[in-house]
Amino acid sequence: MSKSEVGLIGLGTMGAALALNIAEKGHAISVWNRTGSKTTAFADSAPDSFADRITPTQTLEDLVASLASPRAIILMVPAGDAVDQQIEALVPLLDPEDAIIDAGNANFRDTNRRMRDLTQPFLGIGVSGGEDGARHGPSIMGGGPRKTWDRVATILKDIAAKHDGEPCAEWLGDEGAGHFVKAVHNGIEYADMQLIAEAYGLMRDGLGMGPGDIADAFTRWNEGPLQSYLIEISAKVARATDVETGRPLLEIIEDAAGQKGTGRWTAIEAQHLAAPVPVIEAAVAARNMSARKAQRIELEQIFGRAPNSIPQGALSLDTIEQALICGKILCYSQGFDMLAAASQEFSWSLDLPAIARVWREGCIIRSAMLDDMAEALSKAPNHSLIASPFFADHMRRTHDSLRNMVSTAVRSGAPVPAHAAALAAFDTQRTTRGTANMIQGQRDFFGLHGFARTDDGRSDQHGPWGNT
Amino acid sequence: MSKSEVGLIGLGTMGAALALNIAEKGHAISVWNRTGSKTTAFADSAPDSFADRITPTQTLEDLVASLASPRAIILMVPAGDAVDQQIEALVPLLDPEDAIIDAGNANFRDTNRRMRDLTQPFLGIGVSGGEDGARHGPSIMGGGPRKTWDRVATILKDIAAKHDGEPCAEWLGDEGAGHFVKAVHNGIEYADMQLIAEAYGLMRDGLGMGPGDIADAFTRWNEGPLQSYLIEISAKVARATDVETGRPLLEIIEDAAGQKGTGRWTAIEAQHLAAPVPVIEAAVAARNMSARKAQRIELEQIFGRAPNSIPQGALSLDTIEQALICGKILCYSQGFDMLAAASQEFSWSLDLPAIARVWREGCIIRSAMLDDMAEALSKAPNHSLIASPFFADHMRRTHDSLRNMVSTAVRSGAPVPAHAAALAAFDTQRTTRGTANMIQGQRDFFGLHGFARTDDGRSDQHGPWGNT
Repeated sequence: MSKSEVGLIGLGTMGAALALNIAEKGHAISVWNRTGSKTTAFADSAPDSFADRITPTQTLEDLVASLASPRAIILMVPAGDAVDQQIEALVPLLDPEDAIIDAGNANFRDTNRRMRDLTQPFLGIGVSGGEDGARHGPSIMGGGPRKTWDRVATILKDIAAKHDGEPCAEWLGDEGAGHFVKAVHNGIEYADMQLIAEAYGLMRDGLGMGPGDIADAFTRWNEGPLQSYLIEISAKVARATDVETGRPLLEIIEDAAGQKGTGRWTAIEAQHLAAPVPVIEAAVAARNMSARKAQRIELEQIFGRAPNSIPQGALSLDTIEQALICGKILCYSQGFDMLAAASQEFSWSLDLPAIARVWREGCIIRSAMLDDMAEALSKAPNHSLIASPFFADHMRRTHDSLRNMVSTAVRSGAPVPAHAAALAAFDTQRTTRGTANMIQGQRDFFGLHGFARTDDGRSDQHGPWGNT
Repeated sequence: MSKSEVGLIGLGTMGAALALNIAEKGHAISVWNRTGSKTTAFADSAPDSFADRITPTQTLEDLVASLASPRAIILMVPAGDAVDQQIEALVPLLDPEDAIIDAGNANFRDTNRRMRDLTQPFLGIGVSGGEDGARHGPSIMGGGPRKTWDRVATILKDIAAKHDGEPCAEWLGDEGAGHFVKAVHNGIEYADMQLIAEAYGLMRDGLGMGPGDIADAFTRWNEGPLQSYLIEISAKVARATDVETGRPLLEIIEDAAGQKGTGRWTAIEAQHLAAPVPVIEAAVAARNMSARKAQRIELEQIFGRAPNSIPQGALSLDTIEQALICGKILCYSQGFDMLAAASQEFSWSLDLPAIARVWREGCIIRSAMLDDMAEALSKAPNHSLIASPFFADHMRRTHDSLRNMVSTAVRSGAPVPAHAAALAAFDTQRTTRGTANMIQGQRDFFGLHGFARTDDGRSDQHGPWGNT
C-alpha cells in the first residue's frame, strides 16, 4: 500500500470538510478520529470519485505508519486543551522531522507556546470560510517556520479559494502569526456584521422599510463598492421566509447574538498592543448588550420606546449606503493598523497587502473592496489604509454621509454604536491638536506623571501645582 | 524595645507616604527598603511629632524581628515580578500566621495566584489617591480572607480618607477582589477624564472659549451635580499659567496622553466577562490615538482641519454640562454592571453600594455623585444604576442634551468618542427589539450557529438556507 501525503486528525464538521477537499484536489490523505466509528462512516460516505485517496485509520499508530516521511499531520480538534492532549499523544510516535499543523481556531499565544516547547516542526494556520469554505476553498493564513510551510504549501494552495486563479493561502509570518491574523479577521468580521446590522436597523425602524425592500437595498448595494459575501447573505437573510409561519424570517429571529470568542480575542490583543480598534470593540459590546435581553426590556419600560421615526427627507437610502462604505473603510483601516502594530511588536514583518489578498476569497469577510485594499496597501506601505490615495478619496466622498447618518440616528435614538465609533475615531485621528493635553494636565496634577511641551518638545515637564 | 504593629517594605513615593500616614495615626511601624540608605533618609526626615513610632530596619530579618506576632507586612513594591521576588525572600523568615499585604497596583489575577500558592495569609488591597492620598487619606479596597482583613482593619480604616467620619476602607471580597475593584476604579477614572477632555474640546474649538472662561465653567460645574475632584482640578489645570512663557498652561501641554496600563486591564477583563464598557474602551482608545501624533498630523494634512466652529446657538454651555452629567452616569452604570458581572463570575458577592461608598473620598474619582450612587444601588439592588429611580430621573432630564451635544459635535467634526459611546450604549440598552437578529441570521447562514425564535422561544433554530 502506498503512503499518504498528509494526515488529518479530527473529523468534526470542519475536519471532515477539509479532508474531502484535500482528497478531491488529488492528494492522498489518511484520517483518524478519536471515535473510530466516525472515521469509518466518513470514509464510507466519501464520494466515489476520490474515495480511493482517503485512508481511514483506527489507531494513531496506524495513522502515522500510513504517512510518507517526513510526515505532515493536520490537527482539526477543538482549540485549547484538546490540542495539547492530541500533541502529547502524537509526538512519541513521530520522527524528528515530522510536522504538526494546527488548523483549528487556536489563540496565537497558545500557538507561540507550542512552537517554542515542541522540538517537532509546528505550524499554526488560520482557516476561514466555515464548513462550506473548508470543503470547497477556504482562506488559509499560515504561521510558523517558513520552511515547514513550504513542505505543505502545495496542498494548502490546492485546497484554498482562488481569486483570479491566485490561491488565497499564504505564509504570513513566524510563530502564531497565522492564528493572529485569523483572529483579526474575525474581529473585522464582527465589526462588518455590526455595521450592516445598524444599516438594517435604520432602514427598518428609521425609514419604516419592510424586509423585502431591505433585501432589495442589500441586493443593490452588492453591485457597488459594498459588494461582499456579508452584504450578499444579508439580502438573503432579509428575503428569507420562516417555513413554519410564512412570516419574514428576520421577524422570527431573536435579537440576541452569540459569540465564540475570537472577536473578543482581537479586542484583548488590541489592548495589549495599544492599537485602537473602536469599531471592533463597539461590535463586541453590541453583541454583549444584545444578549442581555432582560436589561433591555427593563430599560425600555423606564425610558420609553426608541427610535423615533426619522423625519421625511432627513436620511436617504443613499446616505446609509455611503455611510456604510465609510464605516467599513474605517473599520478595515483600524484592523490593518492593528496588524502593523503586531508586526512591529512581535517582529513578524507581516505583509499587509498579502493579508488583504488572502482575504479576497474563501473567508467570511471576502469582498471586492479587499482587492482595492491590497493594491492601496502595496502602493502606500507604512501608511494607514485611509491615508492611501485611493481610500482617502473614498473617505472624502463618504464621510459627510457618515456624519449625516450618525447625527440623524443619534437624534432619533436609533443605536449606531459601530458607525459612531468609526466616525469618532476618524475625527480623533484627523485632528492634530486634540484634547489629551487636558488629560495630561490632570495626570500631572494628581500623579506628577509629567507632560511634553508643545513649544520645544521637552518631556517630563510639570505644572506649577505648588501654587494652586 | 517594643514591637511594631505593622511592617512596610518599599519606601518609594507611595510606600513612604503610606508609612508616614500610618505612624501619624498613632501606629508603630517598622520599615525596610532594598536600598538601605533610603530607609535611613526616610526615618531621618519623618516629622518629629511621630518619628518615634517609626522603626527603620536594615535587613529583612531585622524587619521581621521588630514586629509583634502574628505579623502583618505591607508590600509597596512595583507590581509584577518584584512582588513575587519580595514574597519569596520574605516567606522563609515568617511564622505560619504572619500576613503579607500587597498594597501595590497588582493585576488581580496575580493576586489570585499568590493567594492560592502561598500558605501565608495574604491580602491584596487597592490603594487609590496618589501620593497625596497615601499620605493623608487614601481610598482602600480590600480583598482576600476576611479574617486576615479584620486583623489589620483598624490600621487601614485609621489611615483611610473619611466621608462624614466614615472611613473609605472596606473588605470587598475574597481573592483578588480588592485589586479587581481598583482596576475598575481606574477604568472609570480614564473614562471620566476623557469625558471631561471632550467637554473641554467643545468649549475650546466649538465655542471658541479661552482657558480662563473654560476654567470658570469647570468651577461653576463643580458647584452642581458634577462636583468632583476631577472637575475641580480641571478648573485648576485650565487656569494655570506656564511659568516659563506666561502662556496658559493648556497651550503648552502636548496632547499625547500616556497610560500605565490599568485602564487597559479593565477593558481586557470586561471582554473576558462579556460585560460592555464602551465608555472606558473609548477612553483607552482615545489615549492610544493621542499618542500616535504622527498619524494625526498626516491625516489632518489629507482631510483638512476639524472641527468647524459650531453655529451660534447650536450648542450651549448648559447643554455641554448636562451632556457631561449624562455621560458620567452612563459610564459609572457600565462600571457597576461590570462589577456585578465579576461578582457573579468569581462568586465574590461584591457589595456594590459599599464600593461606591469607598470611592466617595480619597480616590481620584471621588465625587458628590458617588454618595447618591451608593444610596441608589442600596435601594435598587440587582439593577443597573440607570434603572434606579434616582438616576433614571437624572437620565430623563439629561439624555436629550447628550443627544444634542453628540449630534452637533458629529456634524462639526469635533471628536467626542466617549460621549458618543455612552449614548450609543444607552440607546442599544433601552431598545427591546434591537438588530442582532440580522447578526444571528448571518451567523446561521454561514456557520449554522442557530437562533432562538421570537414567537415561542425555541432555540437552535435554523433558516431555510437550503432553498437560497
